[in-house]
Amino acid sequence: MIKTKGYAVRNAAEKFIPYHFERRAIGEKDVLIKISYCGVCHSDIHQVRNEWGNSLYPMVPGHEIVGEVKAVGSQVSTFKEGDLAGVGCLVDSCRTCASCQEHLEQFCQEGALLTYNNYERDGKTLIQGGYSDFIVVNEDFCLRISDKLNLARTAPLLCAGITTYSPMKQWNVSKGQKVGVIGLGGLGHMAIKFAVSFGAKVSLFTTSLDKKEDALKLGAAEVIYSKDAEEMQKHVNEFDFILDTVSANHDLNSYLQCLKRDGVMVLVGIPDQATPLFSSNLIIPRRKLVGSLIGGLKETQEMLDYCAEHNIMSDIELIKIQDINTAYERMIKSDVKYRFVIDSASLAD
Amino acid sequence: MIKTKGYAVRNAAEKFIPYHFERRAIGEKDVLIKISYCGVCHSDIHQVRNEWGNSLYPMVPGHEIVGEVKAVGSQVSTFKEGDLAGVGCLVDSCRTCASCQEHLEQFCQEGALLTYNNYERDGKTLIQGGYSDFIVVNEDFCLRISDKLNLARTAPLLCAGITTYSPMKQWNVSKGQKVGVIGLGGLGHMAIKFAVSFGAKVSLFTTSLDKKEDALKLGAAEVIYSKDAEEMQKHVNEFDFILDTVSANHDLNSYLQCLKRDGVMVLVGIPDQATPLFSSNLIIPRRKLVGSLIGGLKETQEMLDYCAEHNIMSDIELIKIQDINTAYERMIKSDVKYRFVIDSASLAD
Repeated sequence: MIKTKGYAVRNAAEKFIPYHFERRAIGEKDVLIKISYCGVCHSDIHQVRNEWGNSLYPMVPGHEIVGEVKAVGSQVSTFKEGDLAGVGCLVDSCRTCASCQEHLEQFCQEGALLTYNNYERDGKTLIQGGYSDFIVVNEDFCLRISDKLNLARTAPLLCAGITTYSPMKQWNVSKGQKVGVIGLGGLGHMAIKFAVSFGAKVSLFTTSLDKKEDALKLGAAEVIYSKDAEEMQKHVNEFDFILDTVSANHDLNSYLQCLKRDGVMVLVGIPDQATPLFSSNLIIPRRKLVGSLIGGLKETQEMLDYCAEHNIMSDIELIKIQDINTAYERMIKSDVKYRFVIDSASLAD
Repeated sequence: MIKTKGYAVRNAAEKFIPYHFERRAIGEKDVLIKISYCGVCHSDIHQVRNEWGNSLYPMVPGHEIVGEVKAVGSQVSTFKEGDLAGVGCLVDSCRTCASCQEHLEQFCQEGALLTYNNYERDGKTLIQGGYSDFIVVNEDFCLRISDKLNLARTAPLLCAGITTYSPMKQWNVSKGQKVGVIGLGGLGHMAIKFAVSFGAKVSLFTTSLDKKEDALKLGAAEVIYSKDAEEMQKHVNEFDFILDTVSANHDLNSYLQCLKRDGVMVLVGIPDQATPLFSSNLIIPRRKLVGSLIGGLKETQEMLDYCAEHNIMSDIELIKIQDINTAYERMIKSDVKYRFVIDSASLAD
């Protein structure tokens, strides 16, 4: 067993406290990673506070993990001690179902194992995430990370990166297209970077006009104030692709109207309430509303390699683990540009 | 000018009465068709009663028109006197915009001209539909009809047929797929016929179990009672493609759950209210909700040729024009198997 130190919450009402636990012993296909950095995803907050109603405690969150390999099992062939490695939202899957065979492990029919807030296959051992100093993961669920990348700024790619990259690749976002991004947060700022890198002309839809300057710096060509119905009306039938990164409750119809014929709007954030949809917005003129969920391991590796090649990383605020409770309060107010990343060295403080 | 006899309503509250009017003189690219039969589409009722709020009176509805060519203009090359011909929902478009160039005239950026409840390009001459004895139409908007087909049973293909055929072709409904059809009416019964002919295994979702026997006769493999939540739950993650033909207000979420990963549900009916949508139903596991609107002229011709080759026609009840008011009352109670078709010869009575 691997002695591990992390930060955990013991129930939905409490704050984070230091927490000592054990990782499983290094199996023959396992990699032991000393965690260098872990991004703080908005879904961490949902789960810590049991907002999805399925939380398991004590909970050590974190699924944007990067670090250095410290040991490998006897049958590991793809990693060796000293390698950089990353772990995203998944740590295992069945490998044999149709989805796994198609490299879409996130849709594993048997249920992929999540990096935290999930049980091991034994149905009783809690899996704990990356707000900690060490993690043990099957090599097939470890990602290679180029040393060209700044390691701290790479952590958020493991969730925010792949969540925005995958639907753009699925729907072939490409040069000359008009792309809209709804919301400028951890996901939204990565979405702008990717869409710009693919050659698209990018517009940010936002309810906070004070984000305009940042959006333009990130490469957006324009910023549309989505609370202004008149301004929205000017953009009807304009976009090939819109990525909706907002997980707060919001109306979809005014954005759907901005799609061209055959345009596609992708949802990646899950609001807790249903949203009213006018069917006519899809039928006339033949638009698509679809979902996307992170990405499989193969595509996550492709995304990391793409980022290394194109120098794409997240914009972050590095924090000590001791500041995690304050960071959560600030995230809820959207007061972060654009991702908190925990410096895991602070666990030794 | 062509003297024409039809049946019209003069406002949303009145019933149909005989109505004499004039069609335009036969232009050099026009075809004069003596109408043999005209299908009665549910959208006729919506428009007659001004349920979409855009009705123009007096209104002669009807956009499922078949008949015989009686004369052609000097520049007409594709039709001659004595040919069978059909007219669907469109009678003209700009021909030059991107949608027209892609044979998707229904999405003409300048606005396609509808077969009724629309003005000619002059902005003042009302266009009147097929509840009448003659129609004058530009040859590009006339369809060829094989003499292999029963003419009366062919009329509904011009709207109900293409509306269900087009999305199945767009999304490649094919052999071995599991296809769901929601609702067994004018559209639904055509959807079952097409999906079966493409080799799919078809299930009907219905709220009226008394339609079960008919659905099985039409080729459906099973009938799912969609009011039974427990029965619906058994079909979660099962379908590749679902066509929703219902234009009454209804919940989409229970049907969306029946789609597999990457499955697609197509809306072709427009309820008058918004429907609550849970985003998670699209995100997990990556489903698509899309719209479709009739079809372009090229595809409508392809559909008619396909029907001639595969002996696919609508199931109809032939009525006299004098019975149109009663027919509307019966349609509203879904009391028709499955399309009323007006025998235009009755206009001479």
